[in-house]
Amino acid sequence: MAAGAVTSEENYNCLGWAARDPSGVLSPLKFSRRAPGPHDVSYRITHCGVCYAEIIWTRNHFGHTKYPVVPGHEMAGIVTEVGSEVSRFKVDDRVGTGTIVNSCRSCEFCEERMENYCEKGAVLTYDGVDHDGSITRGGFSTHIVVDERYCVRIPETLRLEHAAPLLCAGITVYSPMMRHGMNKPGKSIGVLGLGGLGHMAVKFAKSFGAIVTVLSTSASKEDEALKVLGADKFLVTSNTAEMEQATRSLDFILDTASAYHPLDLYLPLLKTRGTFVVVGAPNEMKFNPVALFLGMKSIAGSAGGGTKEAQEMVDYCGEHGIAPMIELIPMQYINTALDRLSKNDVRYRFVVNIEESLHME
Amino acid sequence: MAAGAVTSEENYNCLGWAARDPSGVLSPLKFSRRAPGPHDVSYRITHCGVCYAEIIWTRNHFGHTKYPVVPGHEMAGIVTEVGSEVSRFKVDDRVGTGTIVNSCRSCEFCEERMENYCEKGAVLTYDGVDHDGSITRGGFSTHIVVDERYCVRIPETLRLEHAAPLLCAGITVYSPMMRHGMNKPGKSIGVLGLGGLGHMAVKFAKSFGAIVTVLSTSASKEDEALKVLGADKFLVTSNTAEMEQATRSLDFILDTASAYHPLDLYLPLLKTRGTFVVVGAPNEMKFNPVALFLGMKSIAGSAGGGTKEAQEMVDYCGEHGIAPMIELIPMQYINTALDRLSKNDVRYRFVVNIEESLHME
Repeated sequence: MAAGAVTSEENYNCLGWAARDPSGVLSPLKFSRRAPGPHDVSYRITHCGVCYAEIIWTRNHFGHTKYPVVPGHEMAGIVTEVGSEVSRFKVDDRVGTGTIVNSCRSCEFCEERMENYCEKGAVLTYDGVDHDGSITRGGFSTHIVVDERYCVRIPETLRLEHAAPLLCAGITVYSPMMRHGMNKPGKSIGVLGLGGLGHMAVKFAKSFGAIVTVLSTSASKEDEALKVLGADKFLVTSNTAEMEQATRSLDFILDTASAYHPLDLYLPLLKTRGTFVVVGAPNEMKFNPVALFLGMKSIAGSAGGGTKEAQEMVDYCGEHGIAPMIELIPMQYINTALDRLSKNDVRYRFVVNIEESLHME
Repeated sequence: MAAGAVTSEENYNCLGWAARDPSGVLSPLKFSRRAPGPHDVSYRITHCGVCYAEIIWTRNHFGHTKYPVVPGHEMAGIVTEVGSEVSRFKVDDRVGTGTIVNSCRSCEFCEERMENYCEKGAVLTYDGVDHDGSITRGGFSTHIVVDERYCVRIPETLRLEHAAPLLCAGITVYSPMMRHGMNKPGKSIGVLGLGGLGHMAVKFAKSFGAIVTVLSTSASKEDEALKVLGADKFLVTSNTAEMEQATRSLDFILDTASAYHPLDLYLPLLKTRGTFVVVGAPNEMKFNPVALFLGMKSIAGSAGGGTKEAQEMVDYCGEHGIAPMIELIPMQYINTALDRLSKNDVRYRFVVNIEESLHME
């Protein structure tokens, strides 16, 4: 039977949870994954992290969601079948997939295995249009079939529920820190926003030997930042005296906040030649360019990471005992979880326990 | 007699033109320069370029102008006296000074001779407070006394009236192009704003072997950009079809425009990993961060250049026959020139012919 040709309900091979409309409410949906091709890995999903993208997509904030949409782009699981040409994985291997499942494989960025910047546009793990015309469906589902190129091997020292959020939240903060040379000891790194991404940024930065300052609009997270996550300093951005004192003290600021915030508050904290990296997605950012050019500073963007770096990152986490702080939830809790996530009410990443709460009948 | 101790009018040794108040109107002012110290060069100013900063300072746009202010920070001239320890210059040498005349000389940036980014703040050529507490006065004057460190040698192949604007307009665009590796042939460089800075950016970019696109809000400059300045392409930013076609075509955009302009119009023109450099100074810039992070792009600032790079740049101009297009004016025309400059009515830099129009009685 050709891939995608399954149409009768009794033949559906996968159970997911999908949003049907911009209410964003998720409920069960049966559908079919393709049979594994020669280069495909099929795996039973055990865990899938919950990213803010799930709110954006299920509620159609960008206006191009193709319903029904099965979200989830931070998944991990156990290989159940591999295609005849698969070389890196075998049945029972621990494996994971992040935000993309295909790309052109021939452009400059695919050549560097930075497929997330594919010149022809990488195929997103869900709500993407794959090369065969099918709409991709994500990790809030019982299994997935992915070309092995877009799978990472999860080291034995990492639990699968911890590996899952690394594949979006983890790589999103790891990649720009590596690219801007922040993995050398003694750097001063600021982290703005202490959610799924921000708390991983603190962990990576500490592991690199940096002096880490958490920047927050509220004092309420201070204890957590310093005592639990191990940050060195905590700056409340409304404290003018402390902000003044911190002027030109940071080499790098990683901005993970997604609500609007004025950059002019943060750019003065950077040293000359410092870099402010944006990975959150407010609708608009504003700044006075004087703050940039007087100090040769830059504002840079970064979006995820490629398959090469993702493998390096999970291996690094396995070696250094780096894991996200998660709240493990059943699939049936997802709508409540998304509401809580929209209010930043999670420490620090929801992970759906797929293997214990989602089963084909 | 101690430097700065001259107070009686008959002893004044320098004639300049100064603004007395935020009307910004300039008129003659006699004052004294210090006698050259051991490391100082004293030179007769022959020419001084007119930068947009003159409007900002004389009209007190930043709110901290100390009147009377003698502007001018793009000057060139002929050495008349050197201090006992001066090693690089002798009487009759051709010399010039840009936007700074002093700095701490010991910080990381001074060590690299990037004194414009001095950690303690470089001393601006005019309206700056020098280390002896005196207020600096700029190049709209008959002579200047400057530590030799802050002087560049003007190569014989460059006319002094052409050298002058290089020392602010030239270095301001040259420095970020060098820092971001744009001096390799085959780069695609966009230039936004075709004034004193922008036209020099086109000339440098062409000399580096780049494909140069001038971005403009109006079609009126097309002939000039292509035929006179030698740009390869001209894009009117309101032409949606052409802008669409130019998506992801540029490695680098140098933004010299000082009026407000929305960055979301320009960021899509950058290739993945492309850089948008801001050297103009609108009050505010806005952008949608998605445009940055989907393409790993950055917005970087740059402010002038240090003494090492300034010397390299004028030498480069001398070797490659690069000169600004100027309108040579007498000192007495300066108020009209500033009004015209405020309306962008100049091709492309006013240069005051000091030696022919300003003399001590």
